[in-house]
Amino acid sequence: MPFELTILGCGSATPTLSRNPTSQHLRIYNTEYLIDCGEGTQLQMLKLHCKTSRLKAIFISHLHGDHFFGLPGLLSTMHLMGRKNKLTVYGPAAIQEILRVQFEASETDLRYPLEFIVTHADRKELLIDAGGYTVHSFPLNHRIPCTGFLFQEKQRPRNLRRDRIQQYNVPVVQMKAIKAGADFTLPNGDVIPNAELTFPLHKAASYAFCSDTAPEPSLVNSIAGVEWIYHEATFLNDLSDRAVDTFHSTTLQAAQAALEVGAKKLLIGHYSSRYAAISELQSEAASVFPEVVAVEDGMVFTIF
Amino acid sequence: MPFELTILGCGSATPTLSRNPTSQHLRIYNTEYLIDCGEGTQLQMLKLHCKTSRLKAIFISHLHGDHFFGLPGLLSTMHLMGRKNKLTVYGPAAIQEILRVQFEASETDLRYPLEFIVTHADRKELLIDAGGYTVHSFPLNHRIPCTGFLFQEKQRPRNLRRDRIQQYNVPVVQMKAIKAGADFTLPNGDVIPNAELTFPLHKAASYAFCSDTAPEPSLVNSIAGVEWIYHEATFLNDLSDRAVDTFHSTTLQAAQAALEVGAKKLLIGHYSSRYAAISELQSEAASVFPEVVAVEDGMVFTIF
Repeated sequence: MPFELTILGCGSATPTLSRNPTSQHLRIYNTEYLIDCGEGTQLQMLKLHCKTSRLKAIFISHLHGDHFFGLPGLLSTMHLMGRKNKLTVYGPAAIQEILRVQFEASETDLRYPLEFIVTHADRKELLIDAGGYTVHSFPLNHRIPCTGFLFQEKQRPRNLRRDRIQQYNVPVVQMKAIKAGADFTLPNGDVIPNAELTFPLHKAASYAFCSDTAPEPSLVNSIAGVEWIYHEATFLNDLSDRAVDTFHSTTLQAAQAALEVGAKKLLIGHYSSRYAAISELQSEAASVFPEVVAVEDGMVFTIF
Repeated sequence: MPFELTILGCGSATPTLSRNPTSQHLRIYNTEYLIDCGEGTQLQMLKLHCKTSRLKAIFISHLHGDHFFGLPGLLSTMHLMGRKNKLTVYGPAAIQEILRVQFEASETDLRYPLEFIVTHADRKELLIDAGGYTVHSFPLNHRIPCTGFLFQEKQRPRNLRRDRIQQYNVPVVQMKAIKAGADFTLPNGDVIPNAELTFPLHKAASYAFCSDTAPEPSLVNSIAGVEWIYHEATFLNDLSDRAVDTFHSTTLQAAQAALEVGAKKLLIGHYSSRYAAISELQSEAASVFPEVVAVEDGMVFTIF
């Protein structure tokens, strides 16, 4: 089952008229998540028809303002719109205190349960193990503690080809093994390969969100095998010194990361506001990793 | 010298695609101020060509999110854009702690001096006494402590008519009194009225920003004689019960306030998001106070 990803904001620290600060909306099956929540995210959700009432959880990568200044407003709006369902916020520990002082000042007592799950930037952690998928946080390399988030559909068993199962008189007791990939041995010793007994395996969807980061060597382990990767690309390669100073990445570094983890598709974003157009960022990344899209606010991707 | 007022946001708690939460930009002579700073204000400033670098101070009426959630982002952007000049924030005491925890989490050490001046919602206070004008805060009546802000140009002395001064041989020693409005008595006892000796008095500009409030009896004293008044009008009159519950005003109450203080012009705003169009709000207010404008984001007014 594919994921649906909507880019709510692809800008960096200074918002521009065409790029909101970082936020992405991700739908997995019928569950909707928000990844980061820069200022103005609730308005972008309104514009792009992502209903705030449907959000089950919000993942915050780190506490630079362009990744979370929209959170208090979004939570307040949910309160005013009468939300009753629990909402979970995954992110650095300080979020809780930041929200507490603001809601205390406005004497706001949220009408819905707000749960905080603290992430840790020094290790990969399992955050959610739902029926059909998992969500992990994983370490990135930024000026302050920062994590990425990895969304992975679980590999579902193969579907049996009923006609072949009947033809070879496969006993029920062996079907589970065949669904898991086993071959089948006939009474006469002939081996029927799994591919003849099952439909082609549905490839599980996966998506890694690599928020603000300098190149991070552990990435290749943290998100090994991921199909789609979003990786920040704040600068063109000629500003690689600036990238080092600010713990960000260049287009070439983002492309290199996608290569190293063996991804199928790369999305780049978080462009410095100095770039009015992004075609050069796209083409520079494509010189290393051709399957790249330089995202823009409002783009929607089907991740499979 | 007229003031120039730009409406950056005229919505209420829940932002809509056409109305940002409350914020106004006010230019007095060459000094630029911001009044309230809802989420997205910095983007509205960008869109409406109000330069953040030129802001001298920000006035925050109260700590409901739709009046200040844009403040951390705006202050951060000023920092990133290299601001060096001092910025003063006038508002409730808790602002300082709210900003402290956010900047601490992001390890942001602002590059410019940020001064806090605490306002008090139980009395009228002088905040600024500049050369040509004053700014006061004054009490409003909301669910949490809330003030309005009054901007008043000082009455400048009359300009003398040089031809008449010569004609009547007015001695230098009397000129100050004549500039202040005195008549002049000739040696023969004839009295030359002031109006013959001076140009018509330039009327001093004045503007009162009445943020979220239920009808407030002290207003008539706090802002007596003000020429232009902005007063929130969250609801049409048929929802006056809802206005009471939420410590807001209806169109008729806003119009009544303008009548009572003897204003020349009324601006209304802070409309509930239930109103898609505002023509009915405008006409209802006009039934009591004809000189009313129901403001919209992006409107610019010359206040004189």
